Amino acid sequence: MIRFDSDYIESAHPRILERLQATQGEQSPGYGTDPHCKRAADLIRAVCEAPAAAVHFLVGGTQANATMIAAVLRPHQGVIAADTGHITTHETGAIEATGHKILALSNNEGKITARQIQELVDDHWAAGNHEHTVQPGMVYISFSTEVGTVYSLEELTAISQVCRERGLPLMLDGARMGYGLAAVGGDVTLSDIARLCDLFYIGGTKVGGLFGEAVVIPNAKFQQDFRYLMKRQGGLLAKGFLLGLQFECLFEDGLYFELGRHGVAEAIRLRQGIFDAGFSLRYDTGTNQLFPLLPDAVCQKLAESFVYCPWEKVDDTHSVIRLCTSWGTRPADVDALIEALKKA
Amino acid sequence: MIRFDSDYIESAHPRILERLQATQGEQSPGYGTDPHCKRAADLIRAVCEAPAAAVHFLVGGTQANATMIAAVLRPHQGVIAADTGHITTHETGAIEATGHKILALSNNEGKITARQIQELVDDHWAAGNHEHTVQPGMVYISFSTEVGTVYSLEELTAISQVCRERGLPLMLDGARMGYGLAAVGGDVTLSDIARLCDLFYIGGTKVGGLFGEAVVIPNAKFQQDFRYLMKRQGGLLAKGFLLGLQFECLFEDGLYFELGRHGVAEAIRLRQGIFDAGFSLRYDTGTNQLFPLLPDAVCQKLAESFVYCPWEKVDDTHSVIRLCTSWGTRPADVDALIEALKKA
Amino acid sequence: MIRFDSDYIESAHPRILERLQATQGEQSPGYGTDPHCKRAADLIRAVCEAPAAAVHFLVGGTQANATMIAAVLRPHQGVIAADTGHITTHETGAIEATGHKILALSNNEGKITARQIQELVDDHWAAGNHEHTVQPGMVYISFSTEVGTVYSLEELTAISQVCRERGLPLMLDGARMGYGLAAVGGDVTLSDIARLCDLFYIGGTKVGGLFGEAVVIPNAKFQQDFRYLMKRQGGLLAKGFLLGLQFECLFEDGLYFELGRHGVAEAIRLRQGIFDAGFSLRYDTGTNQLFPLLPDAVCQKLAESFVYCPWEKVDDTHSVIRLCTSWGTRPADVDALIEALKKA
Amino acid sequence: MIRFDSDYIESAHPRILERLQATQGEQSPGYGTDPHCKRAADLIRAVCEAPAAAVHFLVGGTQANATMIAAVLRPHQGVIAADTGHITTHETGAIEATGHKILALSNNEGKITARQIQELVDDHWAAGNHEHTVQPGMVYISFSTEVGTVYSLEELTAISQVCRERGLPLMLDGARMGYGLAAVGGDVTLSDIARLCDLFYIGGTKVGGLFGEAVVIPNAKFQQDFRYLMKRQGGLLAKGFLLGLQFECLFEDGLYFELGRHGVAEAIRLRQGIFDAGFSLRYDTGTNQLFPLLPDAVCQKLAESFVYCPWEKVDDTHSVIRLCTSWGTRPADVDALIEALKKA
Repeated sequence: MIRFDSDYIESAHPRILERLQATQGEQSPGYGTDPHCKRAADLIRAVCEAPAAAVHFLVGGTQANATMIAAVLRPHQGVIAADTGHITTHETGAIEATGHKILALSNNEGKITARQIQELVDDHWAAGNHEHTVQPGMVYISFSTEVGTVYSLEELTAISQVCRERGLPLMLDGARMGYGLAAVGGDVTLSDIARLCDLFYIGGTKVGGLFGEAVVIPNAKFQQDFRYLMKRQGGLLAKGFLLGLQFECLFEDGLYFELGRHGVAEAIRLRQGIFDAGFSLRYDTGTNQLFPLLPDAVCQKLAESFVYCPWEKVDDTHSVIRLCTSWGTRPADVDALIEALKKA
Repeated sequence: MIRFDSDYIESAHPRILERLQATQGEQSPGYGTDPHCKRAADLIRAVCEAPAAAVHFLVGGTQANATMIAAVLRPHQGVIAADTGHITTHETGAIEATGHKILALSNNEGKITARQIQELVDDHWAAGNHEHTVQPGMVYISFSTEVGTVYSLEELTAISQVCRERGLPLMLDGARMGYGLAAVGGDVTLSDIARLCDLFYIGGTKVGGLFGEAVVIPNAKFQQDFRYLMKRQGGLLAKGFLLGLQFECLFEDGLYFELGRHGVAEAIRLRQGIFDAGFSLRYDTGTNQLFPLLPDAVCQKLAESFVYCPWEKVDDTHSVIRLCTSWGTRPADVDALIEALKKA
Repeated sequence: MIRFDSDYIESAHPRILERLQATQGEQSPGYGTDPHCKRAADLIRAVCEAPAAAVHFLVGGTQANATMIAAVLRPHQGVIAADTGHITTHETGAIEATGHKILALSNNEGKITARQIQELVDDHWAAGNHEHTVQPGMVYISFSTEVGTVYSLEELTAISQVCRERGLPLMLDGARMGYGLAAVGGDVTLSDIARLCDLFYIGGTKVGGLFGEAVVIPNAKFQQDFRYLMKRQGGLLAKGFLLGLQFECLFEDGLYFELGRHGVAEAIRLRQGIFDAGFSLRYDTGTNQLFPLLPDAVCQKLAESFVYCPWEKVDDTHSVIRLCTSWGTRPADVDALIEALKKA
Repeated sequence: MIRFDSDYIESAHPRILERLQATQGEQSPGYGTDPHCKRAADLIRAVCEAPAAAVHFLVGGTQANATMIAAVLRPHQGVIAADTGHITTHETGAIEATGHKILALSNNEGKITARQIQELVDDHWAAGNHEHTVQPGMVYISFSTEVGTVYSLEELTAISQVCRERGLPLMLDGARMGYGLAAVGGDVTLSDIARLCDLFYIGGTKVGGLFGEAVVIPNAKFQQDFRYLMKRQGGLLAKGFLLGLQFECLFEDGLYFELGRHGVAEAIRLRQGIFDAGFSLRYDTGTNQLFPLLPDAVCQKLAESFVYCPWEKVDDTHSVIRLCTSWGTRPADVDALIEALKKA
């Protein structure tokens, strides 16, 4: 069986495993106070062109989201997010567990707009008894989104502007940052994100690392005491140096961007294969997630050799499935899948 | 500099790193649903002689403590623990973050007694207005404790008995389980723990693994929906197979126990060296943590070549420090430290 | 100015104020352990035909909702409610503050259906990775609803049946119970509610009392330790006897039901007046809340003599407003409002 | 039976009940936006000599404590309090329910000192890994304390100074403020408290009101969005005007202070009676709570005619009990108790 069901099916890029071997026996202080974390943070600040940003390393995405949101909000505030946002749908209430409501906006291809945010916030403050409803306290977006789309620089700039005008911190979930930055047709850079957002993270788990998300906090207001919040959330890894050395590998010579491009390039080939086989896509994404709309018979045929992620039943005989490529996707596996689609 | 400040200063045992290399390119399903996790769980059930226990894998200790305690308690209940317990002192309020108070008992060499538990619980229920105070809902102990001591089988049995008579689930924090099981003078086995506790975890982070704690839940009452609770707490690792393959290595042929014995053996050698150099110990532990009481001048001398953990200022000229050995301690480093102590 | 903006604009029914005067100087034990609370609980059990139900008294509705929901759910569970539900929209995140997500269903005139509940629950369990989403743990409905409608006995029975088949406790918010029971066309009794729900409350604040909500828990499973949960939530009133004596007044000779009928009767008169004046209603409710759709010019004219609650802007020249009658509404005030509507 | 077990055994001072009667039929807007609340707030600002303070009205003390503490702390911070503090011992984890640990200091006659606070805070920041422990974020004291003692102006000033030097907001629980201000030997005024504390409350429940605590927030930093926090905590009373009119009564002509003095005067008479009968006091308090140390035989004799609060078993034949006077204590009842003590 060949897996295309997610982008976290393999351990890590060989260079990371080699680095682990090479540093065996090395002794480091704990909890991210080691030289690897320091150097990785410097590399990330450089690539973000954010010399004053705080950088911290967490293990996973749900942990990063909960820690960052709890760091920003006061108790009576909520976080604005798409109704398809990861925090809204797939974190088993991790945000609510920190005491905060998610203020969900209807999504358009996984994205929300500056205008929607503005309307929600202005409506809140216009209401007579606004203290009876949760106060909008920040905005959460993903890049790429849960359906593989990306914000354009224009869209992101507009959102950032509305947020700053309304005093709402803007947070960006970059679990799939590598693929978002490499998106076909995309025009956003890491330094754009660092300039336009108050805090965000760069996902390592899905882009070459064993695990790990690098939290970047350009806005000094949210830097204070962040390590306390990590510890409280159970996210301060004892052997933090393991996170540092992975992000060193990923950012010391551009490996992170290269892996992102590889994942997207294979997705583009697969996308063409889907079209060539006569099928369409539910979302046209430009990143490493593809959502073909297929007859159920085709799905069943594919399932003999490939693992995919069921997504949505469309009608009695058709479904949308999700196919993910990644940093580790073998071109031969994509070829095999394209072949299978053609024959199905 | 040679580090003796903690037992999480090195990455992992070579066999684990080799296993990572050997499985590179392998594709696995996510979130601990893979064959490695399944096999590791089976190995752990076997060694615990607890065929019906649930086994789950989490990344770190604070996360494990918060997830397990939140799984057991109702909102108005608290957890009884030693005032030196890790949850009481060193988790930045991670337990309180789940809404629960820690009901601290004064420790004796890091331990609490069946009698203390019984008195606290009986006093609670004897009070007229007991609903005005937090209801004792479970008991937390550590093995080995934060000061390196271990419960005897007799002590653990007595605690378990009181807990069962009073309807209090008993949880054991085994972040240093490997060293506790190998304690000089200790008589407790994993199967004793599985028989006497309702839930516990076996620490990998400090005993040979890169990271990872294996949660074992013998009591069926607390097995339900545990994966939801892990996810909510940000503890369901995307690449769960990384946890599975580490615990496979540790438990497929007794490596875990061997590593525990190594750490303790080196500690025992160091302990003798401390005595030979004319110094005493604050706690006499039998495990991998040593707490020598030293003149400050000696501490300063040591600090030129060794990293230790400051513990407690005793008077104007003396301090207690903590020295940890571990699975990875090199005998030559212990020799060097003994030599330095003699010369100091 | 005459107020029709809410049903909590006046202190309390004269009989309650008289009872306060009559009991002045009386000494009572605290926290609801007094004879007034005991007698009030007995009266409520009798009228509910629920001799084994637990009855407790809380001060307000948001407090009652948060306490009851926190008493029922495990940490990873959420509460199903209408998207117009009071907990969903107007409690400033009080439910999320207890760590729980609200699983909102689209409402039909303020109500949700057995079928919607069934689908949400069945979809949850049918999903492959259900532990990645919040588990539906209970159902919350209101009677009457936030837009003044009521469930029929058939609807309520169907909801109860689905809940019991799926193991979901059913909770009913009865802040406006008095008006719901008196609804024109309604066929539900308190004993129906006690039979079909696992826990609910009978609102006193809006139906003749100074304040107070009587929590009734027919299901023994949720009775345990409820007083602890009240205290933890800040809801155990020191002078609990004030709640007891109010509910004694309301339930010793049917005053509660009488007051509900009065409020509804005045609403029905007002409703006819609205129709007679040529206007329509946004929801046709049968209880004490009316939602006329009016030209903005009419609203402005009314605002010279009456206070109403703005509800919804419909178009550039029309709005929906809310008008509430209550136990204390003076018929002459309704006459004046009808007159004003006719002239407007 | 005559009750001396607490200071919340009677409904309210006659003037308050008369005011309730006098305002019957009056219509007011909800949630504390009415003229009574506005006037009461003005009266309180005046008596506190704090013209810029925010004033809000909550129903009870546990609610006030939880709301105020949650308003001040960030998630990783805890509140310093005496180990006998009400939040520490008698609120069923209401503070922990908001996610915060209580950092308990050993009390001296119910009080803590500036020096203890300073040491705890300085030790926290001196520790190497301070982010592994809860950060001290504010200080909570009571006036009068749970054992009836009061801080002198010198003590309170010293605490305030340490708090301001260390950046710790100081909160004062004034559930028994009326008796604290009237304490024999006391020298603290409301305006001292408003000048030295960042936020505090003035208890009505125990000093003449049916219920109600007036929260006063002199520090502008903690005024923002306080009504949201009240609502989220379930503390925004629908008929807020009931709170306003009670505090109008209490503060429009000094009734509050008069009632405090009455309670203390009766306590002082009772105290002399205890001494005259040959008994001693566990704490010498100066306020309305007395803690005589009595032979158990005397306790049993008293229990035939009086209700007291059991406090502490001292040895096999002696106990400490608590006796409370209050605003409503009848001199004849005190006479009867003194007589009984003499005969016992």
